[in-house]
Amino acid sequence: MKKVAIGVDIGGTSVRLGVVDERGKIVLRENFSTKDYPGRPALLNRLSSGILCLALEARKRQFQITGVGIGAPGPIDVERGFVYFFPNIPGWKNTPLKKILERKFKMKVFVDNDANAMALGEYRFGAGRGSKNMIALTLGTGIGGGIVLGGKLFHGTRFSAAEIGHLKINEDGPLCACGNHGCIEAYIGNGYFVREVQKRLKAKAKSILHEWLREGKELTPKLVQDAARTGDLFSKKMWEEAGSHLGTALAGLVDILNPDRIVIGGGIALGGEMIFGPIRRTIAKKAFPIAARSAKVMPAKLGADAGLVGAAALALT
Amino acid sequence: MKKVAIGVDIGGTSVRLGVVDERGKIVLRENFSTKDYPGRPALLNRLSSGILCLALEARKRQFQITGVGIGAPGPIDVERGFVYFFPNIPGWKNTPLKKILERKFKMKVFVDNDANAMALGEYRFGAGRGSKNMIALTLGTGIGGGIVLGGKLFHGTRFSAAEIGHLKINEDGPLCACGNHGCIEAYIGNGYFVREVQKRLKAKAKSILHEWLREGKELTPKLVQDAARTGDLFSKKMWEEAGSHLGTALAGLVDILNPDRIVIGGGIALGGEMIFGPIRRTIAKKAFPIAARSAKVMPAKLGADAGLVGAAALALT
Repeated sequence: MKKVAIGVDIGGTSVRLGVVDERGKIVLRENFSTKDYPGRPALLNRLSSGILCLALEARKRQFQITGVGIGAPGPIDVERGFVYFFPNIPGWKNTPLKKILERKFKMKVFVDNDANAMALGEYRFGAGRGSKNMIALTLGTGIGGGIVLGGKLFHGTRFSAAEIGHLKINEDGPLCACGNHGCIEAYIGNGYFVREVQKRLKAKAKSILHEWLREGKELTPKLVQDAARTGDLFSKKMWEEAGSHLGTALAGLVDILNPDRIVIGGGIALGGEMIFGPIRRTIAKKAFPIAARSAKVMPAKLGADAGLVGAAALALT
Repeated sequence: MKKVAIGVDIGGTSVRLGVVDERGKIVLRENFSTKDYPGRPALLNRLSSGILCLALEARKRQFQITGVGIGAPGPIDVERGFVYFFPNIPGWKNTPLKKILERKFKMKVFVDNDANAMALGEYRFGAGRGSKNMIALTLGTGIGGGIVLGGKLFHGTRFSAAEIGHLKINEDGPLCACGNHGCIEAYIGNGYFVREVQKRLKAKAKSILHEWLREGKELTPKLVQDAARTGDLFSKKMWEEAGSHLGTALAGLVDILNPDRIVIGGGIALGGEMIFGPIRRTIAKKAFPIAARSAKVMPAKLGADAGLVGAAALALT
């Protein structure tokens, strides 16, 4: 009998559900738009029926369901499966999500935050496979992080560990949305990166980007990547700098946690060697030799599915 | 029958041995000078006879010895109890210390580095008691660190975790002995701190220290502490700055590990509120609120005995 778990990846834009097998394969899936179900009762209902349908279909196929795993976009009490709040979805303050769903489905339910779910997904089925101590980060608008130690997600005392984006690499660095200065997110979060490029373009940096923007292209990290690929020196330098800032933060993590794997995903990570090169060089230069040598830096493998597969992995034991 | 372990704290200056009971009390002790036994064979012999004498005395008193724990000043393969080398004691490159001693004594032998032993000592019997996830640091010439997660020393993939002193808080900060810039050790390690005070005094900072130095006093962190206690504004500011730099590094650790306890020992930590005040304020300001609130910052309790007691704790299970 094939063992599967139901994974749910709750996002501010969409909710992704799936039936995932022990090899991390998504055998059934479904999405819906978060905005179509405003308010907690509506979203909870829609979530429940989504889970129910997947469970029925899975049972029809004679799968054995080990439980339901949920990745959620906000701080969670992981032990109780309790949602403190979702910064981008109103109405969820203090929701005992695990309790509600376990009562409804008579199945084991596990809840964790989305960054941890993604990290677990990569660890079990992606770029983290075979490692022992792994750090995962997703570079997007913000930086999400998850830490696996000795094969298990590490949560810390109050489940708020792995806030990697707010490691500070310069006490007088750029202002971050968190109110502090020099957080790594304030260098490499999408918005900051684009703003810095903009600023330097205005200060008359020479770049093909001027031309592209006049043609009506939108300034995104991807556009700067494309420019760098054409050999644009300014764009290359922007990526080199971003990678080297991130490398400084990671060198610190390498010295503290001595991981054997660092997995980096998200839009910016698609830059390949352009960004991974300076990251690796900076870690080699700034971290302790023994620790630097044991930390293999790799791009994430599961892409947009990491959160869903990882959520299921919470329940695949 | 009273359970005890034999602890050995190997230092560059002296070696401390002791019989430690399950409550962390040193019931028998002995010291000798490291320099009196130059070369590995001499030091190993002296170590062995020290352990043997303590073991005989312990058995005479009807104690049950659970094993021997050794804290050693250099990188260790903790699983094999293998010494890679000691930076400050020549001749120990690649020494299978655990194997050598176990063969000799027919007792379980555990070897770890001295900073980890100190951390374990504070965790089991000192300022870390009752915590779950603890970070310990000792501020001296360098900064030693140890991390306890879920009640156990965390070593990382190649036993080199917890190198807290080299977290970088400013990419263009002062040069550290490790060759990098802006490591926290380069702000708050004894030498750096004294040099920075010196530099500013030469640049004509107003301070009572000018007078004291003319009287022949030696410029040490302790002297700057004394000056601050008399109300000397310059000295107060130096401590405030040092504490705030350390606070920045600790805020990063708090965001990453979400510890419930941070224990700080070593000479500089004797400054009390002068240094703990700015450390706590900076963590409160710079770390995530949930994580900042759960991290209690406390001075170490075991003083110079932490290493010895912690070494014994390696064998007290």
